[in-house]
Amino acid sequence: MAKSKKEWVVGIDLGGTKIYAAVIDRKGTILGSERKKTKSELGFPATVSRMADCARQAVVNAGVSWDGIRAVGVGSPGPLDMKKGMIIESPNLAWKEAPLKKELKRLLKKPVYVDNDCNVGILGEHAYGAAREARDVIGFFVGTGIGGGIIIGGKLLHGFNENAGEIGHVILDPHGPRCGCGNNGCLEAFASRLSIEREIRAAIAAGTPSPLFEGVENPDAPIRSRRLLEAYLAGDPAVVPAINRSAEYLGYATAGMLNIFNPEVVVIGGGVVEALGALYVDRVREVAVANCFKISSRNVRIVEAALKDDSAVLGAAVLAWSHCR
Amino acid sequence: MAKSKKEWVVGIDLGGTKIYAAVIDRKGTILGSERKKTKSELGFPATVSRMADCARQAVVNAGVSWDGIRAVGVGSPGPLDMKKGMIIESPNLAWKEAPLKKELKRLLKKPVYVDNDCNVGILGEHAYGAAREARDVIGFFVGTGIGGGIIIGGKLLHGFNENAGEIGHVILDPHGPRCGCGNNGCLEAFASRLSIEREIRAAIAAGTPSPLFEGVENPDAPIRSRRLLEAYLAGDPAVVPAINRSAEYLGYATAGMLNIFNPEVVVIGGGVVEALGALYVDRVREVAVANCFKISSRNVRIVEAALKDDSAVLGAAVLAWSHCR
Repeated sequence: MAKSKKEWVVGIDLGGTKIYAAVIDRKGTILGSERKKTKSELGFPATVSRMADCARQAVVNAGVSWDGIRAVGVGSPGPLDMKKGMIIESPNLAWKEAPLKKELKRLLKKPVYVDNDCNVGILGEHAYGAAREARDVIGFFVGTGIGGGIIIGGKLLHGFNENAGEIGHVILDPHGPRCGCGNNGCLEAFASRLSIEREIRAAIAAGTPSPLFEGVENPDAPIRSRRLLEAYLAGDPAVVPAINRSAEYLGYATAGMLNIFNPEVVVIGGGVVEALGALYVDRVREVAVANCFKISSRNVRIVEAALKDDSAVLGAAVLAWSHCR
Repeated sequence: MAKSKKEWVVGIDLGGTKIYAAVIDRKGTILGSERKKTKSELGFPATVSRMADCARQAVVNAGVSWDGIRAVGVGSPGPLDMKKGMIIESPNLAWKEAPLKKELKRLLKKPVYVDNDCNVGILGEHAYGAAREARDVIGFFVGTGIGGGIIIGGKLLHGFNENAGEIGHVILDPHGPRCGCGNNGCLEAFASRLSIEREIRAAIAAGTPSPLFEGVENPDAPIRSRRLLEAYLAGDPAVVPAINRSAEYLGYATAGMLNIFNPEVVVIGGGVVEALGALYVDRVREVAVANCFKISSRNVRIVEAALKDDSAVLGAAVLAWSHCR
């Protein structure tokens, strides 16, 4: 229920390279925001202190009073200990057992709630984006790796060990390429940005005539998503098959999820998808629908994420508001 | 809440070959039962009439009064129109748009509730069997095909088109063998009894020295599960790899489900599993745990179904009781 008193929450998206904090009202409007570099290499205390500064500056930028901030929600890389709000371990941040909730609460003197970055991403899309008013939703976020989030009956699915949603690690070929998780043939090993890149480099090494690295100063640097789009549009013979393979395997994974969960909406987001847009999502949808039961895809929306960079801060705000009376 | 008045429900398991009805109290005790052949080839009206006779005879066998029967629950092959209690189509029964709920209600003059056979199977295991008191459960039933059921937060997951749980059709290799559903490399195409049998026959045709059909009158008849067990125990070189492949692919599918749903219990049941028991389930568990995140399988039970033939009638009773005040 709306209150007459002016109140807001702060949503924070903690990423491997940047911290993004936004001041958000009950309707999901962003009143102001701030970004800082994560600098996780300086250690957890330095980063959590930067998060607190970022939150405070966002409140200043929003022009609202600090007293009106009810709570703080955070989307964090995982896996997490959800009850303690602790990062158990994160390959992107290189910390172990980092007490995120406790420290941020100590610094900001506000209630703090923490969940997995992909979980809050899909919460954001569910509240304000591509999956509004849907009961059952699956989100795939295709970036460096592939993460996901699942909403059942309008609520996030956390699972027995609070680790549900690791949708990048559904097995699509037990004899397929090695995945970062140590197993073989996970979706992530076929479809993530790193997998696309590995496939492109292998094709070029094998002699595929590609102009991708012509005139590029440092060809060993990660290939940016925008560069992938340009090369795809130009028909680069190393890039096109690698991106198509990514979309197709995401389509196969989606087909399985349609048969198993039979969700109302499948949201496809993340850096790769933001860059390629409909070129990518249309192919995912086509393969998914062709490979599941007709009834599993009937009237199901398979759509691009709508909130781009804001999905995690908005979802973190939903998380924070869910704890406010 | 328990009532002092004596009351029961009838649970009916409608299978491709037999109808099994049982009278069940609020505690899940079977007081009496009856079995009849389905004879679906005689048409839907004949079968539904046999179901009604079977239910009435079960009540007589239980020695309880017909007036004390509160409701009837049915587990039926699908896909179903859940609201209408109608079988949309069933390959095992060869009917289309069969109004099961309506007709059975007309014949028995009791409230009738219908759900998918695998859904009521996992409801039964959840209430009285291998998954008691678990919040999130996945069930795989390995028979002629592979069906499944999913419980989230203690409730069956039906999904947007009421077709959730088609867990036999998660894709494990997009370039794998053709599946009965028309797509390639579904779990069912690697692990069902039909797939095991196809694999065995292909191995024998290719010259694998197997005594499986020696002295068998009709080698083209389906291989019974008990015969598979004997051949497996005897080390038959055509049978052992086919069964191991089935268990391994079910293990890969389970690994994916552990990463995605992170359930508390995975129940493995169905004819193949009943015949092979721990020989099969141990291999599924081993492959599943080796191919998912450690945290996804921590303290998760991957166990054989406990109720055997009774899981569907007991689950159908749970369904019926859930509608009784």
